[in-house]
Amino acid sequence: MGEYRTSIGHSDADSITLLGHDLPGELMGHVGFGELAFWLVARRRPSSAELRVFEAVLVALADHGLTPSAIAARLTLTGAPESIQGALAAGLLGGGSRFLGTTEDCGRMLADALASEPGPAPTDDAAYDELAIRIVSEARAARHLLPGLGHPIHKGGDPRTPVIIRLAAESGVYGAHLRLFEAIGRVHPAILGRTLPLNGAGTCGAALADLGFPVETLRGFALLARTAGLLGHIAEEQRRPIGPAVYEHVDRSSDYQAET
Amino acid sequence: MGEYRTSIGHSDADSITLLGHDLPGELMGHVGFGELAFWLVARRRPSSAELRVFEAVLVALADHGLTPSAIAARLTLTGAPESIQGALAAGLLGGGSRFLGTTEDCGRMLADALASEPGPAPTDDAAYDELAIRIVSEARAARHLLPGLGHPIHKGGDPRTPVIIRLAAESGVYGAHLRLFEAIGRVHPAILGRTLPLNGAGTCGAALADLGFPVETLRGFALLARTAGLLGHIAEEQRRPIGPAVYEHVDRSSDYQAET
Amino acid sequence: MGEYRTSIGHSDADSITLLGHDLPGELMGHVGFGELAFWLVARRRPSSAELRVFEAVLVALADHGLTPSAIAARLTLTGAPESIQGALAAGLLGGGSRFLGTTEDCGRMLADALASEPGPAPTDDAAYDELAIRIVSEARAARHLLPGLGHPIHKGGDPRTPVIIRLAAESGVYGAHLRLFEAIGRVHPAILGRTLPLNGAGTCGAALADLGFPVETLRGFALLARTAGLLGHIAEEQRRPIGPAVYEHVDRSSDYQAET
Amino acid sequence: MGEYRTSIGHSDADSITLLGHDLPGELMGHVGFGELAFWLVARRRPSSAELRVFEAVLVALADHGLTPSAIAARLTLTGAPESIQGALAAGLLGGGSRFLGTTEDCGRMLADALASEPGPAPTDDAAYDELAIRIVSEARAARHLLPGLGHPIHKGGDPRTPVIIRLAAESGVYGAHLRLFEAIGRVHPAILGRTLPLNGAGTCGAALADLGFPVETLRGFALLARTAGLLGHIAEEQRRPIGPAVYEHVDRSSDYQAET
Repeated sequence: MGEYRTSIGHSDADSITLLGHDLPGELMGHVGFGELAFWLVARRRPSSAELRVFEAVLVALADHGLTPSAIAARLTLTGAPESIQGALAAGLLGGGSRFLGTTEDCGRMLADALASEPGPAPTDDAAYDELAIRIVSEARAARHLLPGLGHPIHKGGDPRTPVIIRLAAESGVYGAHLRLFEAIGRVHPAILGRTLPLNGAGTCGAALADLGFPVETLRGFALLARTAGLLGHIAEEQRRPIGPAVYEHVDRSSDYQAET
Repeated sequence: MGEYRTSIGHSDADSITLLGHDLPGELMGHVGFGELAFWLVARRRPSSAELRVFEAVLVALADHGLTPSAIAARLTLTGAPESIQGALAAGLLGGGSRFLGTTEDCGRMLADALASEPGPAPTDDAAYDELAIRIVSEARAARHLLPGLGHPIHKGGDPRTPVIIRLAAESGVYGAHLRLFEAIGRVHPAILGRTLPLNGAGTCGAALADLGFPVETLRGFALLARTAGLLGHIAEEQRRPIGPAVYEHVDRSSDYQAET
Repeated sequence: MGEYRTSIGHSDADSITLLGHDLPGELMGHVGFGELAFWLVARRRPSSAELRVFEAVLVALADHGLTPSAIAARLTLTGAPESIQGALAAGLLGGGSRFLGTTEDCGRMLADALASEPGPAPTDDAAYDELAIRIVSEARAARHLLPGLGHPIHKGGDPRTPVIIRLAAESGVYGAHLRLFEAIGRVHPAILGRTLPLNGAGTCGAALADLGFPVETLRGFALLARTAGLLGHIAEEQRRPIGPAVYEHVDRSSDYQAET
Repeated sequence: MGEYRTSIGHSDADSITLLGHDLPGELMGHVGFGELAFWLVARRRPSSAELRVFEAVLVALADHGLTPSAIAARLTLTGAPESIQGALAAGLLGGGSRFLGTTEDCGRMLADALASEPGPAPTDDAAYDELAIRIVSEARAARHLLPGLGHPIHKGGDPRTPVIIRLAAESGVYGAHLRLFEAIGRVHPAILGRTLPLNGAGTCGAALADLGFPVETLRGFALLARTAGLLGHIAEEQRRPIGPAVYEHVDRSSDYQAET
């Protein structure tokens, strides 16, 4: 008779239920953590083939070194060492449009393009190329950047991209989104006049969309992956801090100029 | 020649390194997500036995239904549906001393007690009971609650506790922290005059400490686990929101009384 | 010779400078807090007339009772009572597109419309009405809602709106944004077929734009105002908590249905 | 008949009430923003003398240049420029024990010391010195640092401290907390063997306690003050970003060393 319907979990004095299963009896020791995360969002248990691709995506997105997000988490720990949750939250809050957003934006762009076509998804490369030509041309005309295309560091190719594609193919979950994304990779140089790499974050978005996740959930997985990376940074910061040195550098190198 | 030493990850134009390994070549498709999280914090790869216990802990802590943390995440999405990272961060910020803190506090209490003993850790139950008697008696004298003891809902026993202990024993990672925690379970009724359950969050803290994690990292794992649960809540909120109904209920049931 | 240019503040062993002034000697005791906030963002000190409107806007936006944002802050305190900054941050994170965003969105809509006109801003009501007719018609054709129009509770008129407008007029800072917003209020019923109130958040956005603030700074003031309101809620929650009762209600009224 | 009692605010179709007053009719245009913040937490309107000290405290705490908190907010904006609330929240989350916590910790230390004395507060300097000698001696014996004593930059004296004390004295709100804090300033050199400055954050905590605020609310005011400063940094970052340069510096200066 409740007002708030949920299918995630509940508990009473003697039992804890998660996703319709007895947590201690049926899940703990039987389900991996990545598997549980998939299940919680997809509302279905992944096959082992799907899980392999999904975990590879999470591993691919977990860390990229001393990013703005990792530095922000470390500086937050400098000021509030007692609040791990604050440092983690600060790091995740940088996971917006410019960095982690790519995963979602790319998945959305591909899903929208596929949905805009009447009938079923294309079945041969020529049809995917045709659709890709339309997308890239429209983006060029509107002077929009295509999400997933280009990388500030991996200009010659993001090394994560072929691995995701290979794993998806091996696992039988290579689908319309990855296929369209590869087509964009093929056709864009002729239209844009330069060759940009398909970046890893975008490829991960395409793979997650091929796994059947709604596009509005994709950024969440990028954040979950990044949570593991940030815990690594936070643990390292606890052992051997760099936050105070970054602060000192910025403070020492600041150039104060009163507005006139 | 850098100023900021890190052992987590870095990348250059052609490669991405994580934990000293080539991310695309050696980790993606080879390492599970839970495994990577362990490795990032512990700075060593877990054995499969360790990993089984570790993932069971993460699964045990992932969700506990519509907790304050889950409700806060959902209400934040009500106000800022465009910012998944904001909703997730709001949910994690409730992971403080009263809820998720138990995992860390219990691990710390056990580690401190073991460290306070001269010589190696006890080897028989009688010695653990003796140490436990001292801890419980001191807490009672100081009118402190012992972290990990008692649960608001699972008053007769937290169903996660025996599963964690069994998995740790089966996997060969049952160590001094879990053993001392079990001793506290045996001796406290005679001292406190009532029988309290060893709760799941505390047991998870003991198990993580037995896996060798420094106590200051334990809350981080509770937060990682909770991230997966919160993503489930956020995805459900996107499909079938309850935030507006909670808001309406609170607003309608509010009783405004001007201060006099 | 620093790399990081800033005009906000700096300090050395003997002095603290803020906005080019000696903080202890020239600002403390001489500048109000609202005045300082204006100055920090506008990079110029407000006149007393401007300040009166600015503070009225902050007062107008400070609180609206037990909103999702206030409830989220209180629930976060339930879980982490030791972290005031976490509870405040959680409350602010709900200040997104749906609630506090209106202030910025309305200011931006008005500024964009004024910027789209060649030549100087209109000077008589007829010209403002003409521009307003274009904006409302375009929004209707595109099936967009106009930010600042309509309110879920104050359906017959937001009582803050006429006060902001009157204060702006009295203070001599009633400008093109408020004037265009009022024109929208006049012309929209004939175009949309129903009469919607100009809401307070939108009016505040128009007033801030008339004060000369860039539109990308407007949400920040809504957040500053809300910070004061949230501190009131947090202090009340510390004295007389409702978070546990909200949690209990939601938990008790939850309806768990396993997905099938 | 509501379940959730509140004395902050509520609204219905025609009116908005805040603190028992009609918001548009009695507060907007009549109450300053700092005044409202005082009132929301204290539940009483300040006198103009109290308000002068209170606003000077907020001005004193608003900014201290490119602190870890300001850098974290700017880096968060680098990653998520669309989410002002995320950048602000990230900045506030660094307002923990090490920086902003001093205001609360110092107020609490003084309030606890005064409460520990039987009878009314001391009335002459000799009695305050006696109490201060006890506090400093106990802290020294326990090897605790006294909050509010010492500053990393203003080693010879924090220039905010005498101004707060003078304003409090002029306004007639110089009370037991500031008086005890000054006594600590007089007596500690003989006990500790070195002279440390009374820092500004601690002095602000003493002044807020003298204004009658409960100690658990003090950190909130430090956060409110910092919100204004962070909005200044965020607006400057929008105009003339330094986040990308900080990121580039850290990345370029990082020294990756695989764990062995």
